[in-house]
Amino acid sequence: MTSILSRTITAFSFIIFFSCSIKDRASVTLGEIAKKHKKNADLIINRAIADSQGYDRLGEMLDTFGPRLSGSTNLEKTLDWIIDEMNKDGLSNVHGEDVMVPKWVRGKESATMTSPWEKELDILGLGGSVGTGPKGIRGEVMVVSSFDDLQAKSNMAKGKIILYNVPFTTYGETVQYRYRGASEAAKVGGIASLVRSVGPYSMNTPHTGTSAYEEGVKKIPHAAVTLEDAAMMSRMSDRGLTVKVSLYMEAQSFKDVLSQNVMGEIIGSEYPDEVIVLGGHIDSWDAGQGAHDDGGGCVAAWQAIKLIKDLGIKPKRTIRAVMWTNEENGLRGGEAYRDEHFNELNNHILAMESDAGVFKPSGFGFTGSNKAFNILQDIGTLLKRIDSGEITKGGGGADIGPIMREGVPGMGLKVDNSRYFWYHHTEADTFDKVDKDEFNRCVATMAVMAYVVADMDERLPR
Amino acid sequence: MTSILSRTITAFSFIIFFSCSIKDRASVTLGEIAKKHKKNADLIINRAIADSQGYDRLGEMLDTFGPRLSGSTNLEKTLDWIIDEMNKDGLSNVHGEDVMVPKWVRGKESATMTSPWEKELDILGLGGSVGTGPKGIRGEVMVVSSFDDLQAKSNMAKGKIILYNVPFTTYGETVQYRYRGASEAAKVGGIASLVRSVGPYSMNTPHTGTSAYEEGVKKIPHAAVTLEDAAMMSRMSDRGLTVKVSLYMEAQSFKDVLSQNVMGEIIGSEYPDEVIVLGGHIDSWDAGQGAHDDGGGCVAAWQAIKLIKDLGIKPKRTIRAVMWTNEENGLRGGEAYRDEHFNELNNHILAMESDAGVFKPSGFGFTGSNKAFNILQDIGTLLKRIDSGEITKGGGGADIGPIMREGVPGMGLKVDNSRYFWYHHTEADTFDKVDKDEFNRCVATMAVMAYVVADMDERLPR
Repeated sequence: MTSILSRTITAFSFIIFFSCSIKDRASVTLGEIAKKHKKNADLIINRAIADSQGYDRLGEMLDTFGPRLSGSTNLEKTLDWIIDEMNKDGLSNVHGEDVMVPKWVRGKESATMTSPWEKELDILGLGGSVGTGPKGIRGEVMVVSSFDDLQAKSNMAKGKIILYNVPFTTYGETVQYRYRGASEAAKVGGIASLVRSVGPYSMNTPHTGTSAYEEGVKKIPHAAVTLEDAAMMSRMSDRGLTVKVSLYMEAQSFKDVLSQNVMGEIIGSEYPDEVIVLGGHIDSWDAGQGAHDDGGGCVAAWQAIKLIKDLGIKPKRTIRAVMWTNEENGLRGGEAYRDEHFNELNNHILAMESDAGVFKPSGFGFTGSNKAFNILQDIGTLLKRIDSGEITKGGGGADIGPIMREGVPGMGLKVDNSRYFWYHHTEADTFDKVDKDEFNRCVATMAVMAYVVADMDERLPR
Repeated sequence: MTSILSRTITAFSFIIFFSCSIKDRASVTLGEIAKKHKKNADLIINRAIADSQGYDRLGEMLDTFGPRLSGSTNLEKTLDWIIDEMNKDGLSNVHGEDVMVPKWVRGKESATMTSPWEKELDILGLGGSVGTGPKGIRGEVMVVSSFDDLQAKSNMAKGKIILYNVPFTTYGETVQYRYRGASEAAKVGGIASLVRSVGPYSMNTPHTGTSAYEEGVKKIPHAAVTLEDAAMMSRMSDRGLTVKVSLYMEAQSFKDVLSQNVMGEIIGSEYPDEVIVLGGHIDSWDAGQGAHDDGGGCVAAWQAIKLIKDLGIKPKRTIRAVMWTNEENGLRGGEAYRDEHFNELNNHILAMESDAGVFKPSGFGFTGSNKAFNILQDIGTLLKRIDSGEITKGGGGADIGPIMREGVPGMGLKVDNSRYFWYHHTEADTFDKVDKDEFNRCVATMAVMAYVVADMDERLPR
């Protein structure tokens, strides 16, 4: 899920909206569209739920290539493999579209608390951070609980390492410290900044993510420490103990490099130029395997169209699965897709994204017209049997944001996200955290929705 | 909790027994002993539940001195501080008793998976392991799922790094791979061994713990990897990918050094030579803070007697709080206590240990006579109001094991241990995992039980 702040918050406000919106339960009486497509929808669901191929393919992808940070060979190898595999699947128009992406490389990094006693700190440098130089940085830690607290203590900040010990409330609120903490610390004379990892629960698990420097402010190294270590250093400081940390980071930014958005299709039998696009972002952070964020969303969308094809179902419109690149630290993929397909956006009937993990799905959050909303609710009744047909207002995704802003109706897959931020951007976002049945339900849910919208007699109204 | 295997299993079989034993619910009708002590028991409970001192002291101890591995200065500084604090509390006979303990030092350690792609592995070397030498060890990984599987593949093991990828079932069962995995691997030609961390849930959290080498078998380095990495390397191997790891460990064992068991008392008003002893082990592993294992148990026992003293309650018998040293990799404290007090063991009325974490308590598991059991059940009714008075048969603790084997009746505090093995021997066993109210309930439960047994007209029968 995006780490560019404004988009992070936009993307996340979808999810917040999902949680807050009053559930507008669709009647289980099947409307006309649902009735007409029930047979194929049931075929799709049955096949998806009994499937192993998508889940196994996700595991194979994650284990064979590793995490997929923009600019890494891991990412490009993964993309090449996806093109090969989509061709083997017999999908149509399989290809990549060039995208220039940023390249930030973590390098080696370490941190040690040297006072009041010696402890290795598990850290993850934050995306975009500068390094410390070969000698590292040593300093006393000043703990703050907010930006206001930093201002209140600004006269004591000079030469210190600033630690933001801010407990997780919502992602949108707490991520501010990760995103712009370094520049705020530098403004008051801090020599480096540490942020308590942005997550509600920890087993000594640091979280990375993107950060940015303010123009004209000195760039200082910026890293995430674990909840445990942040809370500990804060307690020590409250007790009057002097806390000192030694920090070493080789982090560097390089020139942009070439990546690609990769896609494959089922071509529509009657209206091949009208497109339902669905997917996720194929890039991930460089910790763990990017399993829930967002390898799972990508492979689920891909498997959704593979399964429709394998069943011999031929929808009237084209369904395109897209693996967008560079969502995490640039959103270049989503923007490049918009530019590349700008003249076809009027024929983009619906855009669908899965980027909140492949946990148990409950339905979709939708942004578009009321007329379209009512139709989607009708389609949702087909998913009632697997409890994933609830359509709520408001929703989308970071990668489809650029085309949604051009008027394309958009929707985001809603899942049980109770543990999403436990794993998000950590070494724990790994294949073992993906439940096969939950993954298959995500596939079924996206496949049924995409298929019916692609096969209705009339276009989904804007 | 002990890591010497036989004792580990013994200690843990108590807990397993707790879970399995049929609950023998005490009647809530107060018997004679309970009736007589209800007023003071209520005073103790009320004070404990409203208390902050014990919890704050635990935090201060953990944060000021850090984890407390046998042989470390952290441990000895902690012990000196406890003696000072117990004296400030006005406890009687505050002193330390010398114990020689093993000294194993982790040093720096790291591991990298170098094939099929490069990944830093979060590891924790296992207590007692030898190091790799300055050049480290590189090798192909052979994954096995059990000792039987290792035997079946023994002809392929030569020159390999053996990875035991054994999912957690019970501690007693799974810990075998940590304890004796190195020697079994060495016997078939392995050059190092890795074990999937012994815990049921992980957020990339390695678990350390003790291990041992079999006499006459080559000593090879032995470390724990995370559940995530073990599962990943196992899947890779199943897919036919070649997994290679580079391992570096500076681990070393040194000569035994001096430590101490530390204790303080409330002296009995009528039978000062009759002793109720309660406590936990003050040493911990060198990861995290040893908060649940077992700093919490120690401070809860200490606070229990502090609180009885502060209330001005004067029990007939002596109550002694003991912080045993070196439970984790030697049990030297428990054994030294038995030897030092051997001639007084007939007057040890009851021994009580808390070493399963300071989570919400439910009561005690007791090992002793049926007559005593019935009396303790009666006393348990006094704890009904905080839901922690259930007495079940079977129970004790590692540190009190040596005196229990000499006939002293023993009991272990029972707590909700659903997350104990999430944190056990990891960087995540930290103060933030201790809930103040749950900790206070542990204090109340131990204090009431110790007080009433100390104050009954007759000795608890053997």
